[in-house]
Amino acid sequence: MDRLTIEEVRLTPVLVADPPLLNTQGLHQPYTPRLVVEVRTAGGHSGVGETYGDTKYLAPARKLAERLPGRSVRDVNALLAMAGELPVSGTGLSDSVDVGGLRGVQTAEKLRLSVASAFEVACLDALGHALGEPVHALLGGRVRDTVEYAAYLFYRHARHPDDAGEPDDWGDALDAPGVVAQARLLAERYGFRSFKLKGGVLPPDEEVAAVRALAAEFPGSPLRLDPNGAWTVATSLRVADELRDVLEYLEDPTSGTEAMAAVAAETRVPLATNMCVTTRGEIPEAFTRGAVQVVLSDHHYWGGLRRTLELAAVCRTFGVGLAMHSNTHLGISLAAMTQVASVVPDLHHTCDTHYPWQSEDVLTARVPLASGRVRVSDAPGLGVALDRDALARLHRRWREDDGTHRDRDDAAAMRRLVPGWDAPAVPRW
Amino acid sequence: MDRLTIEEVRLTPVLVADPPLLNTQGLHQPYTPRLVVEVRTAGGHSGVGETYGDTKYLAPARKLAERLPGRSVRDVNALLAMAGELPVSGTGLSDSVDVGGLRGVQTAEKLRLSVASAFEVACLDALGHALGEPVHALLGGRVRDTVEYAAYLFYRHARHPDDAGEPDDWGDALDAPGVVAQARLLAERYGFRSFKLKGGVLPPDEEVAAVRALAAEFPGSPLRLDPNGAWTVATSLRVADELRDVLEYLEDPTSGTEAMAAVAAETRVPLATNMCVTTRGEIPEAFTRGAVQVVLSDHHYWGGLRRTLELAAVCRTFGVGLAMHSNTHLGISLAAMTQVASVVPDLHHTCDTHYPWQSEDVLTARVPLASGRVRVSDAPGLGVALDRDALARLHRRWREDDGTHRDRDDAAAMRRLVPGWDAPAVPRW
Repeated sequence: MDRLTIEEVRLTPVLVADPPLLNTQGLHQPYTPRLVVEVRTAGGHSGVGETYGDTKYLAPARKLAERLPGRSVRDVNALLAMAGELPVSGTGLSDSVDVGGLRGVQTAEKLRLSVASAFEVACLDALGHALGEPVHALLGGRVRDTVEYAAYLFYRHARHPDDAGEPDDWGDALDAPGVVAQARLLAERYGFRSFKLKGGVLPPDEEVAAVRALAAEFPGSPLRLDPNGAWTVATSLRVADELRDVLEYLEDPTSGTEAMAAVAAETRVPLATNMCVTTRGEIPEAFTRGAVQVVLSDHHYWGGLRRTLELAAVCRTFGVGLAMHSNTHLGISLAAMTQVASVVPDLHHTCDTHYPWQSEDVLTARVPLASGRVRVSDAPGLGVALDRDALARLHRRWREDDGTHRDRDDAAAMRRLVPGWDAPAVPRW
Repeated sequence: MDRLTIEEVRLTPVLVADPPLLNTQGLHQPYTPRLVVEVRTAGGHSGVGETYGDTKYLAPARKLAERLPGRSVRDVNALLAMAGELPVSGTGLSDSVDVGGLRGVQTAEKLRLSVASAFEVACLDALGHALGEPVHALLGGRVRDTVEYAAYLFYRHARHPDDAGEPDDWGDALDAPGVVAQARLLAERYGFRSFKLKGGVLPPDEEVAAVRALAAEFPGSPLRLDPNGAWTVATSLRVADELRDVLEYLEDPTSGTEAMAAVAAETRVPLATNMCVTTRGEIPEAFTRGAVQVVLSDHHYWGGLRRTLELAAVCRTFGVGLAMHSNTHLGISLAAMTQVASVVPDLHHTCDTHYPWQSEDVLTARVPLASGRVRVSDAPGLGVALDRDALARLHRRWREDDGTHRDRDDAAAMRRLVPGWDAPAVPRW
């Protein structure tokens, strides 16, 4: 037992306010689950991480939390090995690669890694605190002072159905002018200089018009469109052709490696993905077939920050670009993304982040986003501190929830607007 | 300037005694060059690394050494970026991939990385000393207590031509009985349980007989044969077939990805390599064509320990096995190899090491090898200490050398036995 030995692991599921953002499967619910993981060492050093908080993540997270005391926060490799043996029975997942939704394929291995990622980040944070070093120094040292993020544009409503949830001042965005107004506001408030539109919501021509309107408003800015695999190969090619002069890349226009490869073969617009390549098993085929030109890494999917660097190396070796994906997350993960992004020599595009859409956080201070950038913290660990009151408040919301929000269900939220709605089969258009 | 800022970098080229070992290109000279790199930080923490010491490595090493003061030992990523810009003019190397000798292709990038590797290891060692942590903790933590190595068998003479160099008590090994006797001695002295024979020296049938003799002497032990690419595809396939029941793998039977792929397509004996894949640029073709089943990583080639972990990740992703290559090296590199090998979850085979052949070292204590294994040090850094007297003695030998040994030249040594010898063209058989 030394000062780095883990004495206590604390899991805190929370529900975080989420705006009524639209995507191809439906509508964000008013609250979305996240899981906050804390580790505390014998030397009194703490570390924090976060990951997906849906019910299926919680049981394996509890198992892992039980097994950690007595281990060292140094031992990230051992942690990942332990995570690889977590039972995930009852989730309906197997170790084979199944088709999935917005988060790409759903496999038992990916679930385990998504759980482990929060523990890995918490261990790195605690190790950094104990050694007096920022996380990036544990990953080989940062190569940049700031990490640039893209504005993440959504078609959205001004309010949730029945005015549920927490109100915000962003207004609605249901057509091209609405998207441009939102982009202007995001640029004003955060200084973003590149823009991603979550598509797959309106018929492709309307989304093409929205991207054209963005190009007119922000000439020369990198633009991206992400319909989450909602299109056919033919539609993908038509959109790529129509927007070829303004798109930095097209993200997951269609579903699956086969279809992505078919699109990639016929267009010079690069294809990015956070759906087609989200597990190691998907890489060889996608890379050797040239199905994707940019992988958007999500450190939660890949098992944490060290594994993200491994993914970066695989991409580098095969000449595939790298940037970062974001799902709804808090400041802990933004800090973690920033630390790992700071050490990747060849980060080819600005990273995605949902952070501006999250009005609530569990930190004593929000992670500042200015000029579209987050400064890389040189403080020990991740450089963030938990606000225990905020954490308790969001946990109470989770405890008191009747089950409606404990598992993210965009189709359920959408049904409150469109009775009988079910996530459309893909390709939809 | 903080305690981790590099204040001083010291380069010490040395000549180390080397026995008269044979390979397909010739004979080891009595002394071989290595370069010892030391960094010292403002906080008084030192770190040490070693790499190839031939003349062409020294000029870029000096350039890199000049640029490091004022940088932090944390900043391994920045170090590698700096190394990527080192001038290598006068070496005749370009950034394209050229054919090479025993060390695989020779490119400017690989030369730079080979130089950088010693600095990277020295920085990790110093960082470990400063933080009170073993190097493995900086790499995610060890997953094993010991790292197993293989006995590295050589055809050899008892003495160098003209009794040059330092005598040893291993005797000669010029046929199957000699190889078996050497293997027995290595097993007795170090406890090795797997065996690699450096081949490409005698006609293939004689080497097949030597491996058969080893199999009879050590039934069930993993055996390997490495002719350094000296054979045709047909010879490679014939040897693979004749030894298919006893070979763990066949190492570089033939030269180049094309020929290796042709062999791999027709045999079920796995092919290993430290010649066909020694740079990132060679990976995609070799892996997608299935030319190699095991990559033998050499952390010097790949730019250090972090880059070795990246290579491990690429191999893992493509289902290619991993183990480690060794060229003549001192205890510093054995300690470094052991640290990095300790954190690779899926190390598929015992690692190679020349260490038993090096009677001289620059450490206060030799790295212990028992039961074929090196215990993974949990002491800060690499867990080794320089013997300044020994270092000075081996450096003096380098300083006083008339140029004969400053660049490894196996053909030159061989010419003292076989007048007019030149490294044979491959394939030789």
